[in-house]
Amino acid sequence: MKIIASITQSVDGFVTGPDDGPRLGLGRGGERLHYWVFGGPWTYDDDERDLGQMTGEDKVYFDALVAGLGAAICGRGMYDAAGAWGGTNPFDGRLFVVTHRTDDAPDPPSGFTFVPGFEEALGQARAAAGDRDVAIGGGADLIRQALDAGAVDVLSISTAPVVLGAGKRLFEGFGKDLDLDILDVHPSPFATHVTYAVRR
Amino acid sequence: MKIIASITQSVDGFVTGPDDGPRLGLGRGGERLHYWVFGGPWTYDDDERDLGQMTGEDKVYFDALVAGLGAAICGRGMYDAAGAWGGTNPFDGRLFVVTHRTDDAPDPPSGFTFVPGFEEALGQARAAAGDRDVAIGGGADLIRQALDAGAVDVLSISTAPVVLGAGKRLFEGFGKDLDLDILDVHPSPFATHVTYAVRR
Repeated sequence: MKIIASITQSVDGFVTGPDDGPRLGLGRGGERLHYWVFGGPWTYDDDERDLGQMTGEDKVYFDALVAGLGAAICGRGMYDAAGAWGGTNPFDGRLFVVTHRTDDAPDPPSGFTFVPGFEEALGQARAAAGDRDVAIGGGADLIRQALDAGAVDVLSISTAPVVLGAGKRLFEGFGKDLDLDILDVHPSPFATHVTYAVRR
Repeated sequence: MKIIASITQSVDGFVTGPDDGPRLGLGRGGERLHYWVFGGPWTYDDDERDLGQMTGEDKVYFDALVAGLGAAICGRGMYDAAGAWGGTNPFDGRLFVVTHRTDDAPDPPSGFTFVPGFEEALGQARAAAGDRDVAIGGGADLIRQALDAGAVDVLSISTAPVVLGAGKRLFEGFGKDLDLDILDVHPSPFATHVTYAVRR
């Protein structure tokens, strides 16, 4: 089993634009980060039914990423920004949400489990995943914490063709030196997906 | 003619490690940024004759980049860090060096021209290049200045598989929002070269 951190950033390294949150998922201008997810341009005002489908190399990349997953971890900020995905975990396997506010945890059938710290979430996700992989999604702070703890085997970064100029930077304040190996690259018109192995 | 800015960065967006300068070109640990330039690992202690050659996709990318160049611009820091390339411009076409200290300018046969500001350097480089392209190399501050001035047609970023954790960040303090289009991607084991058109 592998621990796989994956996230999308701008060319200048931001994983959200300004004012990201519940009403404005990826922040002002940040929807361009996820054009690759919906096969082209979309806005926060679009009805969910009008959103397009992932295509081409974007889909090849994503399908390979999720094929081996048994569980996932994300931060509370990402969970809230995504509107708890409508109240039900859309991913295969349990999603562990790292949060200090565990009192409003949803019921188990939702597929979400609130956990008060990253290490505990990682332990529970490993146990839930068994032989399968564990994904670490955003936010940026959770990925930095996982990299800092030496817990990441594979780092997948999708870079969208936009310079945001502001927002949350993936590697803000991260001070470690890490050697990586490029495992594969999937280029599409909407993003360049590069998957790295983190050397131990 | 196009204005092409190109530079190599780490996965966390640094174009040098700490302490870059005349004796330590790309800074501590920064030589890994340029493994792609020499076909594999090298160190600052290597004799120039022992350095390897660019290979595969790295060479395909670089040859296409330089094929159309008529002149280039770089910052004084990069010029000094490179030891003035031994005193003679190794590139095709004149190299304009942006520097406030123009009193120690080398003789014209060196192929270098010292110019006190970016706009003036750009004007002179355009004139020297004629129908051919103008390259803008590092440092990071020069590329930010060129992007901020709306002077860049093509932005080429080579990302090496290393997290540096410190150094000079390409987009540090850059606050503009820019839409880009991916023109092409050249993946190699040593870097992922992505070339973008900057939308006007």
